[in-house]
Amino acid sequence: MTGTDELSYAMRPIGVVSSSRLQAIDDDWADVAATITVLPPFDARSLVALGAFSHVEVIFVFHGVDPEAVCTGSRRPRGNPDWPEVGIFAQRAKDRPNRIGLCTCELVEVRGDMLEVRGLDAIDGTPVLDIKPYMAEFAPRRQVRQPAWSHELMAGYF
Amino acid sequence: MTGTDELSYAMRPIGVVSSSRLQAIDDDWADVAATITVLPPFDARSLVALGAFSHVEVIFVFHGVDPEAVCTGSRRPRGNPDWPEVGIFAQRAKDRPNRIGLCTCELVEVRGDMLEVRGLDAIDGTPVLDIKPYMAEFAPRRQVRQPAWSHELMAGYF
Repeated sequence: MTGTDELSYAMRPIGVVSSSRLQAIDDDWADVAATITVLPPFDARSLVALGAFSHVEVIFVFHGVDPEAVCTGSRRPRGNPDWPEVGIFAQRAKDRPNRIGLCTCELVEVRGDMLEVRGLDAIDGTPVLDIKPYMAEFAPRRQVRQPAWSHELMAGYF
Repeated sequence: MTGTDELSYAMRPIGVVSSSRLQAIDDDWADVAATITVLPPFDARSLVALGAFSHVEVIFVFHGVDPEAVCTGSRRPRGNPDWPEVGIFAQRAKDRPNRIGLCTCELVEVRGDMLEVRGLDAIDGTPVLDIKPYMAEFAPRRQVRQPAWSHELMAGYF
């Protein structure tokens, strides 16, 4: 390949989350209200016309996770013995390589350099790396299939 | 806030894309076949049981974009005068802060330390930062709304 494995990319937060959730809790994120405020050098211009979208995809850092505790192989999701051992890239656990979180959430309102969202599974103080408008054309093409354990795990998540 | 704006996070590629697309082209990604091979220290264990999912979300770096050319404010998508000027976080242009790309694509097959995908909008040699299994529960809750320009832009994308 191209030696990509020797590089690293410095990612600077473009915003920060303010949320009533101060600690990571597994479930019940659907009604959690939060705001994302963009940080300098970004300002309200970077959010112009975002309000025309109902949803955003937020890419953030699980900053509370100890980089040394990251799983690089496989394990049972949430340590649950009823679920199979699966690779870290076959689950969405937060203690993952690069500690990147991703959530599609409802955009309630944009006010200046801040957006109000609902259902963002990121705790207070979370650094945000990117915000993308949700476009239906990016939804899965063809039918979605996923294992039983993932439905069980997600049953109370949102 | 917490001084988050002074931090940066070093992200190391966990995999690399091999694709027949060598250059960034705006449209017709739906049938593009590509593979993602995980890089050391990761191996086949990190992909165990991923094959039970039909789709993955791939987070990657638009590594071909000059960091100096990144848009931090607003502009017309693709420079098209028929479309409104919108903030960089209200569009999915590649010359964006942190140069992070995100695509939901079909998972065709997992073979050892490699996955074969279809419809990944990343060119050959693209560094991959994360792979997440697609779970229907993460799809938008409530109805999706998006502006006309975004439907026009996406008409030939996939």
